[in-house]
Amino acid sequence: MPIAKSVRKLVAYVPGEQPKSRNVVKLNTNENPYPPSPKCAEVLSGFDLDRLRRYPDPNFTALREAIAKLNGTSPDKVFVGNGSDEILSLAARAFVENDGRIGSLDPSYSLYKTLAAIRDVEWTPSADCTLFLLTNPNAPTGVLKPRGEIAAFARKFRGVLIVDEAYADFASDNCMPLAVAEGNRNLIVMRTFSKSYSLAGLRVGYCVGPVELIDALYKVKDSYNVDAVAQAVALAALRDRRYFKANVAKVKRTRKAFVKALEKRGWDVIPSESNFVFARPPEGGMKAAELFAFLKKREIYVRYFPGPKTGDRLRITIGTDAEMAKLLEVLDS
Amino acid sequence: MPIAKSVRKLVAYVPGEQPKSRNVVKLNTNENPYPPSPKCAEVLSGFDLDRLRRYPDPNFTALREAIAKLNGTSPDKVFVGNGSDEILSLAARAFVENDGRIGSLDPSYSLYKTLAAIRDVEWTPSADCTLFLLTNPNAPTGVLKPRGEIAAFARKFRGVLIVDEAYADFASDNCMPLAVAEGNRNLIVMRTFSKSYSLAGLRVGYCVGPVELIDALYKVKDSYNVDAVAQAVALAALRDRRYFKANVAKVKRTRKAFVKALEKRGWDVIPSESNFVFARPPEGGMKAAELFAFLKKREIYVRYFPGPKTGDRLRITIGTDAEMAKLLEVLDS
Repeated sequence: MPIAKSVRKLVAYVPGEQPKSRNVVKLNTNENPYPPSPKCAEVLSGFDLDRLRRYPDPNFTALREAIAKLNGTSPDKVFVGNGSDEILSLAARAFVENDGRIGSLDPSYSLYKTLAAIRDVEWTPSADCTLFLLTNPNAPTGVLKPRGEIAAFARKFRGVLIVDEAYADFASDNCMPLAVAEGNRNLIVMRTFSKSYSLAGLRVGYCVGPVELIDALYKVKDSYNVDAVAQAVALAALRDRRYFKANVAKVKRTRKAFVKALEKRGWDVIPSESNFVFARPPEGGMKAAELFAFLKKREIYVRYFPGPKTGDRLRITIGTDAEMAKLLEVLDS
Repeated sequence: MPIAKSVRKLVAYVPGEQPKSRNVVKLNTNENPYPPSPKCAEVLSGFDLDRLRRYPDPNFTALREAIAKLNGTSPDKVFVGNGSDEILSLAARAFVENDGRIGSLDPSYSLYKTLAAIRDVEWTPSADCTLFLLTNPNAPTGVLKPRGEIAAFARKFRGVLIVDEAYADFASDNCMPLAVAEGNRNLIVMRTFSKSYSLAGLRVGYCVGPVELIDALYKVKDSYNVDAVAQAVALAALRDRRYFKANVAKVKRTRKAFVKALEKRGWDVIPSESNFVFARPPEGGMKAAELFAFLKKREIYVRYFPGPKTGDRLRITIGTDAEMAKLLEVLDS
């Protein structure tokens, strides 16, 4: 059968499980525990059906302008995708030759290796590549790399550096100032509406960077890659700053209390600047893999990444206070 | 700058213009003149915001099952994309090697050449390729190729044949029986919600074919390529069969009357099985290109494709009876 060789041997990326049951305490895919801004509901219920019969704005003009304004830059430095995933996939086309390489840290977001495999190019844990993907704060560790360090790397690096800031709204710093800076030639900052805006179900991500690179993404995208509803709902969420700030503050407050509670129980918790923690259970008790299965049986889903670098820890999303209390209660039992 | 060579020289596909003004009679991008089923509005206004904070079903289970049932097949033969455009782009990855070729008829949907350019492979107007894209009914002509002819081509062809049936609901026949047939090894039929379901703004397309090929598309797609709202709204539109049938019947009725009216005025109209006509203005009057500009000035948008094979005709989308009357009135003036 005429399936490309690289695809035949491809092992698909497995996203965190989406349980059917509503009773599950779901702390496995870094979703926000709170619903999106009520303004999103207003947009949905007031949506003019006649807009749906027409193609959406291929350039998402209103959303792009709002994103530019929020980040103190111009719309021509902004690109919007059907989730950050699409932006990554487009970048793999725009910035990598067929015989090129994609690089990232190891461990990092496990999708990056799959992305290289789909693109049928090599993945490397080095900077010997034309596209380097850096999650900051990193996943699954939650660690924030200092901005200065990233700026220094970008200056030396001859390819395109995408700083995937999916979790930046939960962090104490970010690289947006580097992305919008005048002299920037190769650094792109990527954000998503999935986490801090509670819109994972909607699939909207964006990125900011040099006009020349943004233009290349426009060239390789599908004509209408972001649908009309997604454009309008994301815009409403973006504009509701008050709701956004309160949402993020709540998650950070819960994170602080949860880390303290884990540490009190002897866990080793890596300092997190994201909406999850990557933590090692105390010596002598259940190991991470066992604990993962144990929790799952009790309808508490967390994430476990097997392997020498990650296999002794669990990645636990920050949920509501009640959800974290339930988890601690089960751990104590 | 590290932009892939193929992308640097790429001329982006230019979709039909989306005018800002609401007064425009818009007959240029084959949108349906009627809004989608009112059930879509119910889904939007009743949408549980809490579903938006979670990732959508990566396998669009409910929608896939409904599509399978409608077409008399099983869900494992169905794939759903962020518009048909995404399916084409995924197919170009799954069924074409880096040194492969993509084929299509000439003229056909002009996106196909761009698709090959983005994939950085050759485009060919021949069957010497591993992926052949066939629009049926064809664009911009509106002509329906007989099913038997396509079946014969597929049997001889060693690559993957995608029959893009964006307009099939307006036609007298289609290739779905070939796609769902037991012995089928290489034929995929693609459909969209953009035309006959009036949901161009939503970006939902699907395809049906052999399990092995469908699996390959799943492997190369982004984890969550169709958002939760799009899945739910498309499902509602699909289920409202009565509305769907009435909508399609209205468009076909208008098409029949409009073709008659054009022919009465001396136009040469290719028999159309789609929601548009490809027609040559009568000798002695304005040529197609002039007429295109003339109509645009009067806020009537149609589509003009320059070039030796298409440049003497206009592609005119079937709108409402009132819109077609307005167009005829301007033509008569």
